[in-house]
Amino acid sequence: MPCSLLILNGPNLNLLGTRERDIYGQETLEEIISRCSAYADKAGITLEARQSNHEGDLVEWIQQARGVHQGIVLNAGAYTHTSVAIRDAIAAVDMPVIEVHLSNIYRREEFRHVSLISPVAEGGIYGLGAQGYLLAIEALAARFALKN
Amino acid sequence: MPCSLLILNGPNLNLLGTRERDIYGQETLEEIISRCSAYADKAGITLEARQSNHEGDLVEWIQQARGVHQGIVLNAGAYTHTSVAIRDAIAAVDMPVIEVHLSNIYRREEFRHVSLISPVAEGGIYGLGAQGYLLAIEALAARFALKN
Amino acid sequence: MPCSLLILNGPNLNLLGTRERDIYGQETLEEIISRCSAYADKAGITLEARQSNHEGDLVEWIQQARGVHQGIVLNAGAYTHTSVAIRDAIAAVDMPVIEVHLSNIYRREEFRHVSLISPVAEGGIYGLGAQGYLLAIEALAARFALKN
Amino acid sequence: MPCSLLILNGPNLNLLGTRERDIYGQETLEEIISRCSAYADKAGITLEARQSNHEGDLVEWIQQARGVHQGIVLNAGAYTHTSVAIRDAIAAVDMPVIEVHLSNIYRREEFRHVSLISPVAEGGIYGLGAQGYLLAIEALAARFALKN
Amino acid sequence: MPCSLLILNGPNLNLLGTRERDIYGQETLEEIISRCSAYADKAGITLEARQSNHEGDLVEWIQQARGVHQGIVLNAGAYTHTSVAIRDAIAAVDMPVIEVHLSNIYRREEFRHVSLISPVAEGGIYGLGAQGYLLAIEALAARFALKN
Amino acid sequence: MPCSLLILNGPNLNLLGTRERDIYGQETLEEIISRCSAYADKAGITLEARQSNHEGDLVEWIQQARGVHQGIVLNAGAYTHTSVAIRDAIAAVDMPVIEVHLSNIYRREEFRHVSLISPVAEGGIYGLGAQGYLLAIEALAARFALKN
Amino acid sequence: MPCSLLILNGPNLNLLGTRERDIYGQETLEEIISRCSAYADKAGITLEARQSNHEGDLVEWIQQARGVHQGIVLNAGAYTHTSVAIRDAIAAVDMPVIEVHLSNIYRREEFRHVSLISPVAEGGIYGLGAQGYLLAIEALAARFALKN
Amino acid sequence: MPCSLLILNGPNLNLLGTRERDIYGQETLEEIISRCSAYADKAGITLEARQSNHEGDLVEWIQQARGVHQGIVLNAGAYTHTSVAIRDAIAAVDMPVIEVHLSNIYRREEFRHVSLISPVAEGGIYGLGAQGYLLAIEALAARFALKN
Amino acid sequence: MPCSLLILNGPNLNLLGTRERDIYGQETLEEIISRCSAYADKAGITLEARQSNHEGDLVEWIQQARGVHQGIVLNAGAYTHTSVAIRDAIAAVDMPVIEVHLSNIYRREEFRHVSLISPVAEGGIYGLGAQGYLLAIEALAARFALKN
Amino acid sequence: MPCSLLILNGPNLNLLGTRERDIYGQETLEEIISRCSAYADKAGITLEARQSNHEGDLVEWIQQARGVHQGIVLNAGAYTHTSVAIRDAIAAVDMPVIEVHLSNIYRREEFRHVSLISPVAEGGIYGLGAQGYLLAIEALAARFALKN
Amino acid sequence: MPCSLLILNGPNLNLLGTRERDIYGQETLEEIISRCSAYADKAGITLEARQSNHEGDLVEWIQQARGVHQGIVLNAGAYTHTSVAIRDAIAAVDMPVIEVHLSNIYRREEFRHVSLISPVAEGGIYGLGAQGYLLAIEALAARFALKN
Amino acid sequence: MPCSLLILNGPNLNLLGTRERDIYGQETLEEIISRCSAYADKAGITLEARQSNHEGDLVEWIQQARGVHQGIVLNAGAYTHTSVAIRDAIAAVDMPVIEVHLSNIYRREEFRHVSLISPVAEGGIYGLGAQGYLLAIEALAARFALKN
Repeated sequence: MPCSLLILNGPNLNLLGTRERDIYGQETLEEIISRCSAYADKAGITLEARQSNHEGDLVEWIQQARGVHQGIVLNAGAYTHTSVAIRDAIAAVDMPVIEVHLSNIYRREEFRHVSLISPVAEGGIYGLGAQGYLLAIEALAARFALKN
Repeated sequence: MPCSLLILNGPNLNLLGTRERDIYGQETLEEIISRCSAYADKAGITLEARQSNHEGDLVEWIQQARGVHQGIVLNAGAYTHTSVAIRDAIAAVDMPVIEVHLSNIYRREEFRHVSLISPVAEGGIYGLGAQGYLLAIEALAARFALKN
Repeated sequence: MPCSLLILNGPNLNLLGTRERDIYGQETLEEIISRCSAYADKAGITLEARQSNHEGDLVEWIQQARGVHQGIVLNAGAYTHTSVAIRDAIAAVDMPVIEVHLSNIYRREEFRHVSLISPVAEGGIYGLGAQGYLLAIEALAARFALKN
Repeated sequence: MPCSLLILNGPNLNLLGTRERDIYGQETLEEIISRCSAYADKAGITLEARQSNHEGDLVEWIQQARGVHQGIVLNAGAYTHTSVAIRDAIAAVDMPVIEVHLSNIYRREEFRHVSLISPVAEGGIYGLGAQGYLLAIEALAARFALKN
Repeated sequence: MPCSLLILNGPNLNLLGTRERDIYGQETLEEIISRCSAYADKAGITLEARQSNHEGDLVEWIQQARGVHQGIVLNAGAYTHTSVAIRDAIAAVDMPVIEVHLSNIYRREEFRHVSLISPVAEGGIYGLGAQGYLLAIEALAARFALKN
Repeated sequence: MPCSLLILNGPNLNLLGTRERDIYGQETLEEIISRCSAYADKAGITLEARQSNHEGDLVEWIQQARGVHQGIVLNAGAYTHTSVAIRDAIAAVDMPVIEVHLSNIYRREEFRHVSLISPVAEGGIYGLGAQGYLLAIEALAARFALKN
Repeated sequence: MPCSLLILNGPNLNLLGTRERDIYGQETLEEIISRCSAYADKAGITLEARQSNHEGDLVEWIQQARGVHQGIVLNAGAYTHTSVAIRDAIAAVDMPVIEVHLSNIYRREEFRHVSLISPVAEGGIYGLGAQGYLLAIEALAARFALKN
Repeated sequence: MPCSLLILNGPNLNLLGTRERDIYGQETLEEIISRCSAYADKAGITLEARQSNHEGDLVEWIQQARGVHQGIVLNAGAYTHTSVAIRDAIAAVDMPVIEVHLSNIYRREEFRHVSLISPVAEGGIYGLGAQGYLLAIEALAARFALKN
Repeated sequence: MPCSLLILNGPNLNLLGTRERDIYGQETLEEIISRCSAYADKAGITLEARQSNHEGDLVEWIQQARGVHQGIVLNAGAYTHTSVAIRDAIAAVDMPVIEVHLSNIYRREEFRHVSLISPVAEGGIYGLGAQGYLLAIEALAARFALKN
Repeated sequence: MPCSLLILNGPNLNLLGTRERDIYGQETLEEIISRCSAYADKAGITLEARQSNHEGDLVEWIQQARGVHQGIVLNAGAYTHTSVAIRDAIAAVDMPVIEVHLSNIYRREEFRHVSLISPVAEGGIYGLGAQGYLLAIEALAARFALKN
Repeated sequence: MPCSLLILNGPNLNLLGTRERDIYGQETLEEIISRCSAYADKAGITLEARQSNHEGDLVEWIQQARGVHQGIVLNAGAYTHTSVAIRDAIAAVDMPVIEVHLSNIYRREEFRHVSLISPVAEGGIYGLGAQGYLLAIEALAARFALKN
Repeated sequence: MPCSLLILNGPNLNLLGTRERDIYGQETLEEIISRCSAYADKAGITLEARQSNHEGDLVEWIQQARGVHQGIVLNAGAYTHTSVAIRDAIAAVDMPVIEVHLSNIYRREEFRHVSLISPVAEGGIYGLGAQGYLLAIEALAARFALKN
């Protein structure tokens, strides 16, 4: 069965590469997604990527992933620390979600140290920059390979 | 005067009956609303029901209820625990709001034990499943009967 | 099978209607119980009601309800916030308990925002005045109807 | 160089002058903005004003202000206390933001005492009613005058 | 109008003079009450004194004081720190209550530093030994003299 | 001198063996006490056992133990976590008290992790089921043997 | 030996009777002191009274009381809740200090519920208005009578 | 009626312009006050300015402002975070007080995030440097203009 | 099957009987172990005892007990309050562990009131001195007798 | 330049595959390391792996890695949550460290939610089982490739 | 360049040697200063010493030390734990300050465990009695020797 | 009697002078110890110095110091904040221990602000670099001189 993954990015990640580059790196979101696609293509994985600054959009995209995708790579950005709604959406869909953070959130403000997403995610990766997305895709791919 | 009520449902409640049934029960949101409508019809109450995963939608629907409805039955879902905006909207409209939760939120994660809605609601019902909606409608109906 | 319910009231509720009427309403406890009985009669439900200012009495009445009643409507008053003993009694008897509070406890002092009863109750109703008792009886009745 | 400012208002501020007038004052948002415009006109400042109940809208408007406006006057309303996403948007755009609150938030509920916006704002004004907007415009104008 | 006062003593105060004398002093409760009576007699005040180790007894005695006594001197002992029920009883009866503690509770264990009674009492006296009772009677007497 | 011990059991312990057997074990309180008596008889120890759901009863029985018994085995049940009055009674009587808990209270709800009794008890035993009572008797017996 | 007492009043108490009369009463500080003096005269007690808005003044007056006065009646006002220096001064002088508060500080803001003075005071009186001063003098007088 | 305002500055503000200029700016306190006076003169406002490192001085100057000035601009410096006495003085005088902070106190140490002054101030301005004083004067002037 | 038990003692317990005898008693660790061995011999139990000041040693000894011993008596000393590693070792081996403390840890510093061991131990004994070890052995012996 | 990595494993990880398999997975530590070596070989990376239950060993191995290895993959096990010493060692060596956890530590006990290692690590991976080690090696490899 | 140091002592330190000698030692402040002077003389250091019970005095003396002294030895006494104003004064003057405490403040009340001074001091000495002053002078002397 | 002192250094202090020199200074541990020895030699003091990264080593060295040394200079490094075992060892040996920290731990991470060692140490020195060791030796020398 071909594997399809969804990459979701939360608020302000559309600004990547154009703001606070010392924290978030030089690449734009488009460049990162493009790298992910190239990577996925080689592995025979279909990839869809979306970004929104609206909490409700992320909730709905997670809901709609059921039956369409086999896993989600989620960088919920600022909503990581405040959104019970996204957490509930993840708990509701029966699908592995891998949490990704570009920066090392544990070196930043106290309120960024707690993620509401982590307890419902399968696992997560922090502080490894754009490569975190690639590793997350690889992890999901390995997981499905194992099952098939 | 005919009585009109608004039933508002927050994030992920559109998934009712299709996810985590041991927590939230077997009925879909449509079935619950349908039961509510049948109940309201008998009591001569007009009913309107809406659901959104967007915090801002709920804020606006509460604002617009003034002059249109006489009361609101609100299950704010995950926003119960995070939305000061919905709380402020309730405080701003001069209308009784009854808070409903399908599950017993006090048996779940710590962060679900605090509701930002409760202090501005007229009252509330938790843990009685879909029947909570019917009881809330009944409570509002009784209240208006008393006033008329 | 005929259904029998027990209504238990905790400390100071014997003063209802005679004290702090702006918080607790105009009706005396006798008048509320009387309304409950009328309601129960129509529904073919047997009702027994007791009040005590002693924590130990409430513990024992809950214990003794086993095999005699099918459900309990409990307004534990001040003991709601301090009694682990009542909580344990509820957990020990295999019977649905519905928690009722006349006032909106979430608008009052901080220490009234936490109920030790809620996590062991089936569900609860707050802030709807004396009608909360009627709704609780209705909820238990519906539950038993469902089972029979 | 002509100066252009953006005034952003968050949830429920569209109800100004029609709700809780003892807290928020008698003027509608339109009237306040109109006063601001008159004030700005005299000072040769271009003004644009927007309001939304959606967190994501505010995030996006702040993002889009880069290159268009020289400063932002922000009353984030209820999102002041809950939105890390708006905070991140402010941190991401290289532009002075002045936080305004109509009421004295330190006299109100505990949860309104902490602003997630303040640490990333240039400065702020609270409790001075609609005049707070005018003073914020004046502060930004003075700042740009200084630079030119 | 003749003035009648009620002196209530809570758990373990029946052991006064026989236990932990370095903390609570040498006098028995009987001796203290006897001193109070002599003092009251001179001032033309009727005095009734009761002690119980049962929280519910104290709740009921406070309830029954209405219409019988004009004020209460209350040493709730250990229940000072745990009884919301006694607090509610005081709030329910329209009568001045003066809180008395023999020892300086602020030099003792942390949990004795908070009194649930204080916010509903008229005032209080701590750390002045048995004389605290006399001063409380004097305070109530002065208060009634003022009113008459 | 013949040794006499008092075994006190608090609220809901009269239900032992009939409720929540996975937590509290299969034996009834009568069976446990009977085992204790047999054990005591062999060791020439007189044993008296009481149970009450009333905090005040436990306070009084502890007070009355002075001059009658040489030690107390106390399972205060739910009052372990809420009763300052029982704590004060123990501090007031000059007699070793050994605290017993059938279950491992540290594996249960957070509020059961703190005992108000422990700091005034001689020592304690938790999580060893009914055998905890026998070990407590043995500990007191050994202690008195040492002194005689 | 003739007894001499010092009455110390802290910040803002010089405004008594002229500000916030619903909280602090109608009498000016002069009138209260005058009542105290009359009372003391009858009892053969010498009285000295001082007020300052400076923490350092209060520290020094307490230090200087040694060898001059036999006891201190102290209403430290706002410094009650913030001054470790006054606390240390009290601990340093070997003399009974009675803490007085005109209002019931436990009904006011949270930060007024904790007194740094209480643990080093002999005892204290709260919420009994100006009479609190008289009762404190009486308590010290009785104490010295007892010793002589 | 001519308007007279009092500008009060707390501890260490006498060092302005000579210390930590990156935090507090380049101007000395004299220069700021001088700018304020020029501004006030134009608006027909009388201005008096004082600075002290003594908490008691600030308390007394606030007390003495009654009947002399119509409003106070207060930068309490370090006492903002520790002085209940200044807070009480503000509450005691019936006069609008506007709190000013030169720096953005919310970007600094945690203990500077809480102001004891804010809840009793009319409003406040932070992080706008010396201009904050001018805006505060303007706000008070507008307020009095409104009333006259 | 012959029963073999392991007694483990943590840091500083090698000093028993030679330091702080008022807290820990007069016996040396050797004397206690010797008493335990005599007791075990009679009961046909094999006993091995070890002590270490190194957290890692205790972790390894617990790991190695699998298949060699049937139960562990553990006094982890200071590591009780800080070692997640020992806790994990206990959770990893499928064997009953009984926690022993010589002193009443609940009468000592706050940080000694929490044990990381208790939630993974079968049960525990505190404050009964060296006898606690004997009782723990007895408890394990009884447990195995029951199973055989 | 050939790349050499060090894989360090903390307490109890030597039991992998033999204990609590539902949490930590089926593979032994040897099998995981063996998979890592195969993976590293292909990528031309030298790998050294060590495990210890002693905090001090881990501290020393990290110290000694300087000049020998180019990066560290660290699963500090239980010491993750308690060891400031390991944290300091990481901060002292100028070398990227990637934190790995087999399980999702955010679904487990509260005390496992905080890592003392994270703020000094380059980044981390949790909840992805043994694959987490492979991804960490890949991340370090990519990093060095980038630099060369 | 000759070195000049300032020794500042806070509230109640003028009582040294005359109060609580078990905590603070037998020497008077004069004797300690005298020892310091003798010590300084030998080292060719000029010494000035001051004591005040007024927070504002300490603030001003620290301010005035600039350009006059090269370092400060500060025992702020009770103000150590409450004075942000002294902390700010230290931060404002560009001069090394060494904090001295006669007693071991970490063995005393909880509120004495936190020093507002420490984070802005160069370093500090606690619990070494009057010798702490000498060591602080020595440390400053060594520091200046190093620089010259 | 000749005086012998033990200098103990905890984890990572073997890296001194080679890591994070801005925090810990330029000298290696060998150089510091060498300076200490020279200093001790002059004063006729015997010195022994040890360093370990193992908590258990430090515990044992402290235990073994009894009868061999007269005092200990202890820089426990990271174990300062986590080791109850070292604290207990200090409490167990009857010998003055002086705590030394090279850096100002109160300017660093929050978790470094609390020392478990301080309450059992005689006194301590922080933030004075390597000189702190010399001052500690001097303090102990002075102390023994005083006694002899």
